[in-house]
Amino acid sequence: MDIIVLRPDVSEEQIERIVKKLEAKGLKPHVSKGTERTIIGVIGDTSKVTEDEENAIRAIPGVEDVVRILKPYKLASRDFKKTDTVIQVDDLQIGGKKVHVAAGPCAVENRVTLLDIAEKVKASGASFLRGGAFKPRTSPYSFQGLGIEGLNYLKEAKEKTGLPIISEIMDPRDIDVMIDYVDILQIGTRNMQNFKLLMEVGSVDKPVLLKRGMSATIKELLMAAEYILSRGNEKVILCERGIRTFETATRNTLDLSAVPLLKSLSHLPVAVDPSHGVGKRDLVTPMAVAAVAAGADMLLIEVHTNPEEALSDGEQSLTPEQFKEMMKKVKAVAEAVGREV
Amino acid sequence: MDIIVLRPDVSEEQIERIVKKLEAKGLKPHVSKGTERTIIGVIGDTSKVTEDEENAIRAIPGVEDVVRILKPYKLASRDFKKTDTVIQVDDLQIGGKKVHVAAGPCAVENRVTLLDIAEKVKASGASFLRGGAFKPRTSPYSFQGLGIEGLNYLKEAKEKTGLPIISEIMDPRDIDVMIDYVDILQIGTRNMQNFKLLMEVGSVDKPVLLKRGMSATIKELLMAAEYILSRGNEKVILCERGIRTFETATRNTLDLSAVPLLKSLSHLPVAVDPSHGVGKRDLVTPMAVAAVAAGADMLLIEVHTNPEEALSDGEQSLTPEQFKEMMKKVKAVAEAVGREV
Amino acid sequence: MDIIVLRPDVSEEQIERIVKKLEAKGLKPHVSKGTERTIIGVIGDTSKVTEDEENAIRAIPGVEDVVRILKPYKLASRDFKKTDTVIQVDDLQIGGKKVHVAAGPCAVENRVTLLDIAEKVKASGASFLRGGAFKPRTSPYSFQGLGIEGLNYLKEAKEKTGLPIISEIMDPRDIDVMIDYVDILQIGTRNMQNFKLLMEVGSVDKPVLLKRGMSATIKELLMAAEYILSRGNEKVILCERGIRTFETATRNTLDLSAVPLLKSLSHLPVAVDPSHGVGKRDLVTPMAVAAVAAGADMLLIEVHTNPEEALSDGEQSLTPEQFKEMMKKVKAVAEAVGREV
Amino acid sequence: MDIIVLRPDVSEEQIERIVKKLEAKGLKPHVSKGTERTIIGVIGDTSKVTEDEENAIRAIPGVEDVVRILKPYKLASRDFKKTDTVIQVDDLQIGGKKVHVAAGPCAVENRVTLLDIAEKVKASGASFLRGGAFKPRTSPYSFQGLGIEGLNYLKEAKEKTGLPIISEIMDPRDIDVMIDYVDILQIGTRNMQNFKLLMEVGSVDKPVLLKRGMSATIKELLMAAEYILSRGNEKVILCERGIRTFETATRNTLDLSAVPLLKSLSHLPVAVDPSHGVGKRDLVTPMAVAAVAAGADMLLIEVHTNPEEALSDGEQSLTPEQFKEMMKKVKAVAEAVGREV
Repeated sequence: MDIIVLRPDVSEEQIERIVKKLEAKGLKPHVSKGTERTIIGVIGDTSKVTEDEENAIRAIPGVEDVVRILKPYKLASRDFKKTDTVIQVDDLQIGGKKVHVAAGPCAVENRVTLLDIAEKVKASGASFLRGGAFKPRTSPYSFQGLGIEGLNYLKEAKEKTGLPIISEIMDPRDIDVMIDYVDILQIGTRNMQNFKLLMEVGSVDKPVLLKRGMSATIKELLMAAEYILSRGNEKVILCERGIRTFETATRNTLDLSAVPLLKSLSHLPVAVDPSHGVGKRDLVTPMAVAAVAAGADMLLIEVHTNPEEALSDGEQSLTPEQFKEMMKKVKAVAEAVGREV
Repeated sequence: MDIIVLRPDVSEEQIERIVKKLEAKGLKPHVSKGTERTIIGVIGDTSKVTEDEENAIRAIPGVEDVVRILKPYKLASRDFKKTDTVIQVDDLQIGGKKVHVAAGPCAVENRVTLLDIAEKVKASGASFLRGGAFKPRTSPYSFQGLGIEGLNYLKEAKEKTGLPIISEIMDPRDIDVMIDYVDILQIGTRNMQNFKLLMEVGSVDKPVLLKRGMSATIKELLMAAEYILSRGNEKVILCERGIRTFETATRNTLDLSAVPLLKSLSHLPVAVDPSHGVGKRDLVTPMAVAAVAAGADMLLIEVHTNPEEALSDGEQSLTPEQFKEMMKKVKAVAEAVGREV
Repeated sequence: MDIIVLRPDVSEEQIERIVKKLEAKGLKPHVSKGTERTIIGVIGDTSKVTEDEENAIRAIPGVEDVVRILKPYKLASRDFKKTDTVIQVDDLQIGGKKVHVAAGPCAVENRVTLLDIAEKVKASGASFLRGGAFKPRTSPYSFQGLGIEGLNYLKEAKEKTGLPIISEIMDPRDIDVMIDYVDILQIGTRNMQNFKLLMEVGSVDKPVLLKRGMSATIKELLMAAEYILSRGNEKVILCERGIRTFETATRNTLDLSAVPLLKSLSHLPVAVDPSHGVGKRDLVTPMAVAAVAAGADMLLIEVHTNPEEALSDGEQSLTPEQFKEMMKKVKAVAEAVGREV
Repeated sequence: MDIIVLRPDVSEEQIERIVKKLEAKGLKPHVSKGTERTIIGVIGDTSKVTEDEENAIRAIPGVEDVVRILKPYKLASRDFKKTDTVIQVDDLQIGGKKVHVAAGPCAVENRVTLLDIAEKVKASGASFLRGGAFKPRTSPYSFQGLGIEGLNYLKEAKEKTGLPIISEIMDPRDIDVMIDYVDILQIGTRNMQNFKLLMEVGSVDKPVLLKRGMSATIKELLMAAEYILSRGNEKVILCERGIRTFETATRNTLDLSAVPLLKSLSHLPVAVDPSHGVGKRDLVTPMAVAAVAAGADMLLIEVHTNPEEALSDGEQSLTPEQFKEMMKKVKAVAEAVGREV
């Protein structure tokens, strides 16, 4: 059901024309004349009215505004599926009672460092290993990732530690290779509306961690998830990672209210990446525990054995020792809110 | 110490002129010529160089940018005072181990309702009563508060419950009246840069809860605190209450990273107002516990016995029962992070 | 007329209760049950339903959202008054065919400089003199203005040049003094929602230039104007001066689309302040001409005879020579869009 | 040359360690001890210090901040190339005295409509035809474009009217096909940081119109251009199309100050898309003329013969008659600022 608000000066001819247009689209318009405004209520299932058709209605003379009552996403919504979606990866379940922590370096830099980090984060309680083989970089002159070589190291790290792998996919042409190496495909913040890529990962049987675009609304994040779900892949994890605001004291503004909001609007699990969210090592631990308190199902934490030499994101990476301390606090808070780590 | 970056095409004459200008201001400029740029380092205590003087330097031909190394606030900074400021109100201490919860209606509406709310929030563990007698309202047609009558009810509520009072001051002309009625003067988000008001509350001996402006940076919040501190009032509580971003699914975006950041930059206690931060009742409790996990010293929570009839902010007010449930969770998380309620 | 959208799981009892609540408020609710949602249309003049009552309705169990069809401002709207408001100041008309340019220093610094600037901007075609006697400053350590002394210099400048004066009022206690000295009272961006001040200037017979708050929506700007209009003062000039966004390359982001938008939503004249909007001298002239092309009725331009020595805003002030060049371009563009300077 | 600001409590050992790290990177550090802070100036060409290395330096204990003096883009900068870049397309020059107008439908919908629009916009003075064959859509249920069929219609429209074609590329796999059909490849706002796509269009000999991401800073836009330029393609047109802010009264906030700013920082031509910038038909013409007044080299305008039936963006499309009127105003303003159309 939608509402079409007419201009105060709309004519009878215009109203008649709008009604006919709507009827021609198979809709049932119902005109209500108030003392100040006339509105047209559109009865029936208008979820099939696309945004394009909505815009076309707005373009009709006499129309002031169109108010959509139904949400533009369906498969991603809690209305569509009441129960929480739980995603199985190996013997782990994301979206259940346990809060998972995925830790690792921003980028896979070399074999030795990666294996070292993997073993250390596992020892402290991480249940996933994260690390980029293909890196989206603001500058063409920055390190762009090791590519396939990096994927091989990640695979070896999994063999040694048992930790399933999360890694980012940037190019639809890489999908065939990546599904053999990683357990969760990550869509990065800059690609949240790379619709070709979304369609592609929607067509494979592999969980997808979908990061919120840095200026994406909650609605747009859920629409991006809808792209993946509508192609048949039901294993989507939503991830808050900070949005762009006027504040420059932090790298981004971590929007933790997105966690309970997404969990009320959608059935999908919700992860939080405080490392990118704040961009400053000292703030990562407080925001990680706050994310768990707010209801996050998963955390993504950047850890590096030698942040001073990290090829990317050194500033926001925890050392293994700092990560160990963080995990203690995360565990305590998780238990306080009835979860476990 | 400041850095003045010169344009690539700066002339010798221009450099000489800049140096003389700086020396005339009592500063010690030191010119460094690099292969790509010449910069001038300004040695000594440049904290007395005002923003105006900085802008005047920018206006000199040949200057490309001025980079300030020192923070523009002093009294509010952790550099100035290493130990946490603890503010005493009656027998309570804000900024110590205990996390305080200030609860109450958005606006004081009538005597009976206020007393009822006050007793109920006290029973659930609130240690302060909040409520507005003077209300800043977006619309001139909205309820503007009961004024002095409201202050009287607040005073009576304190007599009955012992809860100290937090209430907003909007007009410098009200200060003489208000200091007799309230224990903490609140500066609202729309008045964070009402400098006349800041100076006024800086001149009295009464704690001030300073809410972050809805588009104020962390630096500007600390500068606003500096206004109060520089007039002699050292009892300032900083308050994060949500900033304005592109996201409209929540009333504001509650920036919880401000909590650990403010506590590292400043010695002042930090409060969080999740009710205004999110604007939706269902999100208040998760964000309240997340705020405590992030390190907040105080929470401000809107509670109303009958939100459906509230004269303002009904949408985001908890019922006393919801508040009671929230307090249990707040207590559990506070203990998990080594605090108490 | 408003629309109340109910939750998918709303019960019959809840609907009945909502209907009764609305009827108790004197409204006429009309329930429409669709296949996916039930909505309640509220017939009649709902412009008297305050934002508070709207929020209270949102707080009723079973209500998902309230959609307001009518605008929350009335006196400021084009619906209320179809013809452009033209404001008379001495023998000048703001809001007519002529585009006015108000020029002068950010702050009044001393008598000689002010008189010098006033004569120069007049010679180049400015029709108003702007300059601050009371200055809102981010830092308590910055120059705060000359106060009454500054007002005296402005008065003298008017006597010498005939240019009417625009100057900012910050404190409601200053109003009695200021109305004797200035021709247009300016409300600054940080005070756009200082409602006490708005009420005060709404009660005097003096034109008000109301600057948009740096994070104020167009709707909020018009609501602030409504405060002034509702008190009886009909002489309000709206002023776009840049909004706060994530972009830091300019001081603010000058939202020129606000000009045609405000002129379609409201009958009030619209001014633009490119100096504060961009904060960089080189960008002032292009944005000044763009503002005129977009339909601005007035420009506010900072001019200083010696920007390098200006006590504030030196970085964005034009020299009198630059101002003269700007005026030539402004004149050419004004004529190209059917206006005159 | 860069500046490293040390913490107030930095130790001698830490300073020594930082100096050694910098020297190991081949840099020449110069320590300056002030009364309040110690800083390290890094002499020499630090433009090769990547953002990664900068972050690694930030990660060294004792470092408070790193201030980059040089811009992170080189080939795109005005420092690198003083003269304006002029891009030749057929017999037209973009970036010279003439302001070009590219007009056409948001999406190519069918042959007849496209040819009709093309002829009409040409008759009114458009010099390019714009239209999407591959469409990025927020919803998976919206019209996704005609694909190759659409490209064929665009080619035919060029044959009939002589207007060169601008069309969007979304997928790196489409590049081989598209370069045969279009004259300017458009990178859309959602793909501004799709680095794989940027590299791909950087490797072909075809002009690229690069739209600013909706939350991209000016610096990031220039870094995205740098990706293309660094691969060898020097024909980049920068395009301002509105940024995302808190304001919802317009679809985006058109940042016209980006025009003179980009032209001062870079040698590349600058286009403006007011249709997407404001999203409301009534505001397109005022913002189009304002863009020309601000110095734009090119306009992109959505035109549709029947906006009410448009498959996308009907709300913001001009009719051919409205476009004709707009062109008259654009012409007048262009001449007023010394340009021609």
